[in-house]
Amino acid sequence: MKARAKAIYRHLKQPVDAIVLSNSTEPHIDMSFFYATGLTDGLFEGCTAWIFPDGRCEIVTSALEQDAAKKSGLPMHVFRNRDERLAAMRALVRGVRRLGVNASELTHKAFEELKKLAPKARIVDVSDAIMRARLVKDASELELLRTACAIASRSFEQIVPFVRAGRTESEVAAELVYTMQKNGATGPAFRTIVGSGPNSAEPHYTAGPREIQRGDLIVIDFGALFKMYHSDVTRTVVVGDASPEQREMYDTVRRAQDAAMEKLRPGVKGKSVDAAARRLIDGTKYKGRFIHGLGHSIGLATHDGGGLNSVSDLVLKPGMVFTNEPGVYVTGFGGVRIEDDVLITRAGPEVLSTAPRDLLAVG
Amino acid sequence: MKARAKAIYRHLKQPVDAIVLSNSTEPHIDMSFFYATGLTDGLFEGCTAWIFPDGRCEIVTSALEQDAAKKSGLPMHVFRNRDERLAAMRALVRGVRRLGVNASELTHKAFEELKKLAPKARIVDVSDAIMRARLVKDASELELLRTACAIASRSFEQIVPFVRAGRTESEVAAELVYTMQKNGATGPAFRTIVGSGPNSAEPHYTAGPREIQRGDLIVIDFGALFKMYHSDVTRTVVVGDASPEQREMYDTVRRAQDAAMEKLRPGVKGKSVDAAARRLIDGTKYKGRFIHGLGHSIGLATHDGGGLNSVSDLVLKPGMVFTNEPGVYVTGFGGVRIEDDVLITRAGPEVLSTAPRDLLAVG
Repeated sequence: MKARAKAIYRHLKQPVDAIVLSNSTEPHIDMSFFYATGLTDGLFEGCTAWIFPDGRCEIVTSALEQDAAKKSGLPMHVFRNRDERLAAMRALVRGVRRLGVNASELTHKAFEELKKLAPKARIVDVSDAIMRARLVKDASELELLRTACAIASRSFEQIVPFVRAGRTESEVAAELVYTMQKNGATGPAFRTIVGSGPNSAEPHYTAGPREIQRGDLIVIDFGALFKMYHSDVTRTVVVGDASPEQREMYDTVRRAQDAAMEKLRPGVKGKSVDAAARRLIDGTKYKGRFIHGLGHSIGLATHDGGGLNSVSDLVLKPGMVFTNEPGVYVTGFGGVRIEDDVLITRAGPEVLSTAPRDLLAVG
Repeated sequence: MKARAKAIYRHLKQPVDAIVLSNSTEPHIDMSFFYATGLTDGLFEGCTAWIFPDGRCEIVTSALEQDAAKKSGLPMHVFRNRDERLAAMRALVRGVRRLGVNASELTHKAFEELKKLAPKARIVDVSDAIMRARLVKDASELELLRTACAIASRSFEQIVPFVRAGRTESEVAAELVYTMQKNGATGPAFRTIVGSGPNSAEPHYTAGPREIQRGDLIVIDFGALFKMYHSDVTRTVVVGDASPEQREMYDTVRRAQDAAMEKLRPGVKGKSVDAAARRLIDGTKYKGRFIHGLGHSIGLATHDGGGLNSVSDLVLKPGMVFTNEPGVYVTGFGGVRIEDDVLITRAGPEVLSTAPRDLLAVG
C-alpha cells in the first residue's frame, strides 16, 4: 500500500508530516482508511490509519477488529478502551507539526478530538489530494471493480425473465440483490432503484409496492459491492412492445451515451464529456429533461470523488473509472436512463459493465 | 415533527437561534436530517434541514429530491446548482447569532462551509442534545421499529430450514436478506453476519465462502431496515446435536441476557445493565470472554447514540430501544451471541424481536 500513501503525498499542495484517517461510528466511516490500509473487510469504527511521507502506514485498531486488521500486514496498535485508544493516537501524533486530515470524510467531532490530541500541530485539510489519488485506480483496485461490474451485469441478465407485469418494484429489487449476492457480491452497492411507469421519471426514486404494468418503462439502477468496491449500472426496459415515444426517448439517451463515450479519453475535461451528452439531448424535443450530471467516479464509494458534470474541470487520466449515465425524464409519463461503468485507458474507453444496452422488451 | 425539534431544543445546554443538519455525499449523511423532517425515503445529498426554537423546520433540497422532500409537508427551498444552494442557506442563516450543528454526523468540510456562510455566528455543537432527543422514540418511530423487528424475526424463522451442513455462510446471508426484502424490508439494516465454526468466535466477522459443517456453532447477526429504521438481532444455532460445551456456552449467554433484561427499566444506568450480564459471565469459566459492550440504542442508525457498556452513565427512560446482546467467544472453538431489541416501558422491558431464543439445532 506504500504506492497509495505516496500517491496521496504527491498530490499535496502543502507538505504535512503525517496524515490521519479517522473513522467514527457507522455510517461515518472514512473510506480512505480502506484505501490506505488495503483492507477490504471489517468495519473499524473508532479506528484510525496514519500515513507518513515515506509511504509507511500504521493502524490504531480496537481489539474487536484486531483479526481483521492483521490481514493488512501493517504495524498496528490495539486498544481495548477509550484511554488506550487516545494514548495510541497521542504517541503517533507526537512531533507532528503539520497533520493532514480528510475533512470531507471526517466528522467535525473527530476533528475536534484530533485538535485536542495535537494542540500545537497545524491541521491541514488534504481531502483534495486524497480524492485525486483515489480517482486513479491501481491494479488490485481495478480487479475488484471489474468483478463488481461483472457480477452486476451477469445478475441483471439473469433476472430479466423475472421482470414482468404483476411483479412489484420491490420484488424485482429483492430478486436482483439476491442474485448479485448469489453471484458473489459482498452486498448491494447502494439501495436498488426499480422505478416503473410514472416512477421511472423520478431519478432518485427507489422501489415500492407498485405493480409493474404493460406499457411501463422501468428504470433499474443497481450495483454490486465486491469487497469494498462499488459498481453502478442502470438499464431501462419496457414491458411489452415499446411505443414510438418510448423508443424515441430510449434512442435519444442511447445516442447521448455514445456521444459521451467517445469523449471518455485521457486529457479530456469532465465538463466536455457532460456537454457531449447534454448537447445531443438538448438538440431534441427532450431539451432540458436531462436533469442531473452525466456521471461520477466509482470505487470505494458510489460517488468516489470527481464528477462528469457541467462545471467539472477534472482532467481524465488512465486508471480513472466513471459512470456514463445520461437520462431523460418526463413527469407523469416516464424516464429512461442508461448507465455504464467505464475505465479510462490510453487506448480509449473500456466499458466494464457488459449487460446488453439495447432496449429490452420484457414480459 | 414540531415535537421532535422541540425535544432537541429542550436538551440543549446553551441556547441557539437555529440548528442546521447538513448532509454531505453518501455515506456521510446526517440521519438527524430524517429525524427532524420525518422523511423516511430519499438520499438528500448536499441538502440541509433547519430547525428553530419554536419547532419550525425548513428544508433546503436539490431539485432532484424535490418530490421526495414534498412528502414532509414542510416549507422548502429548492436549488438547481451550487450557487442557489448557498443562497438558500445564506438566507436561512441570516440574523442567526448562535448556530447549532450536529458535529458527530457533520463532516468537517461541511462545518467549514457553514462557518464561511455565517462568519459572525458562533457555531455550537448540539450533537449531545440531538442524540438525547433521538434516544426516546415517539409513536411513529416505534411503529417503524416494531415493523423492522417483526420482519427480521419472521425472516429468521423462515430461513432456519435453509441453514444446514454444506451451505456456505454467504448463501445463508443472501437467503436471509432476500427473505427480509420479500417480507417488506427496505433493505438489510447492515451487512449480515453469518460466522460458522471458528468464524463464530470473531464478533465482527461478516460472511464468507466457508461451508457449514456438522458440529458448528453459527452466529447469525442480522437486521431489517424498514423505511429508515434499523432492527438488529442475533441468533446462534448449532448444526446437529449440541456438545455439552456448546450447550454450556449457550446457557451462560442466555442467562446473562436474562439478567440484563431484568435491568432494562426506567431509571437504571447503562453500566448497571451491562454489569448484570458481565457479572454473570465472569462468574463462570467464560470469565473475560464477553469482549464487547452489552448493547446500543437502535433507531435511524444501527448504533443510534447511547450504549449499554461498562462506562455508560446513560439513564434509561421509557421510549428508548436498546439491543441486549451478550456473547462469549473462544478463539478456535466458536462463539455464542444472543441479541434482542428491547423497548423500555414503565411496565418493564418489552422485547420487540420475537424469534425463538432457545438453542436451535439445524440440519
